[in-house]
Amino acid sequence: MIPTITAFERSPDHGQGQARDMRVRWALEEVGQPYDVRLVSFKEMKQPAHRALHPFGQIPTYEEGDLALFESGSIVLHIAQHHAGLLPDEANARARAITWMFAALSTVEPPIVDLGVALLLERDQPWYTQRLPIVKDRIRVRLGELSDRLGEADWLDGAFSAGDLMMVTVLRRLNTSGLLNEYPSLSAYVARGEARPAFRRAFDAQLAVFTGASDGR
Amino acid sequence: MIPTITAFERSPDHGQGQARDMRVRWALEEVGQPYDVRLVSFKEMKQPAHRALHPFGQIPTYEEGDLALFESGSIVLHIAQHHAGLLPDEANARARAITWMFAALSTVEPPIVDLGVALLLERDQPWYTQRLPIVKDRIRVRLGELSDRLGEADWLDGAFSAGDLMMVTVLRRLNTSGLLNEYPSLSAYVARGEARPAFRRAFDAQLAVFTGASDGR
Repeated sequence: MIPTITAFERSPDHGQGQARDMRVRWALEEVGQPYDVRLVSFKEMKQPAHRALHPFGQIPTYEEGDLALFESGSIVLHIAQHHAGLLPDEANARARAITWMFAALSTVEPPIVDLGVALLLERDQPWYTQRLPIVKDRIRVRLGELSDRLGEADWLDGAFSAGDLMMVTVLRRLNTSGLLNEYPSLSAYVARGEARPAFRRAFDAQLAVFTGASDGR
Repeated sequence: MIPTITAFERSPDHGQGQARDMRVRWALEEVGQPYDVRLVSFKEMKQPAHRALHPFGQIPTYEEGDLALFESGSIVLHIAQHHAGLLPDEANARARAITWMFAALSTVEPPIVDLGVALLLERDQPWYTQRLPIVKDRIRVRLGELSDRLGEADWLDGAFSAGDLMMVTVLRRLNTSGLLNEYPSLSAYVARGEARPAFRRAFDAQLAVFTGASDGR
């Protein structure tokens, strides 16, 4: 059965692959699962029909037969649990890879989202210039800790996993901030993720929506 | 095998159960799994020995034989996957319950943490008074959407699950803000969670650390 995901009709990042459908596309490409895409407008996202799928009126969603899921973390975990290639077979290694998915979403992403919110919504506020360095320093704390743990390794815990997939997509949100350049090992880590053929296919598919070259598939 | 978790030696919330070990304690109590607790000081949390367990120098951690995990979401999921009582058996319902765990951590908690950061770290900043209503309004958006989805139901999707456990602990962080009172169905939802015997046992255990009545077990 071919699952259907939702993505932005008009990506606010102009096809840089920072919308959260990118995580799901990448996971599906890693495991070789074809998928359909339904594009939704910002208006449609907030309508009852979409909210029935996603209570918070966002993308992505994931529909597969009777199953409907939201939250990119949950969707990627579902894909990883039902296909080979994104989680180790050994039970403890598998639990650790899932831990990195949660670390990406719960510990590393929130201060990065906070920076995005400041840049997008608080730019005209009188405190913007003063507060920005504080927000960036909170991100630096996490990046320093992550860089220390990664060390010289290619991936966070053994082979590439769904944990790396989530972490790379979270770190990519810093692409335009310059912050990642302060941590060369993390820049190289993100580049390793972006060099994976499955990442490229997913990236090209979401970019094609923005350039109008595709209906999203 | 009895797992060992870590918790704050001195809880910054004075035993209100808002530290993230509460989630793990509650999950362990729901499934009837005894556990040991190792208390760590703020200084110890940032030392290499603890960072080997938790790269971001926080609590809780979870050790069970050769397995070491961090991130409360990952630990609760691990417990839920290895014991009956926190996830439905049916595959689709199980995936949806896990989705609510991610929704609690990725969508509902970040603006709530942002409020906590503002209250704790930005109270002396010149923008504090002006920015606070904006931060609170971002939380209200999520609470409104969550309240709409919950409707008249007791729990988010059928029977109580790990998704409710995470959501209740996330919403409890608003206890002192007054925001939850604006959404009576969510206040009642949190109260239902707090009334569960397993919650009470977990709460009492973490409070006993603060009052000095216990070494944390």
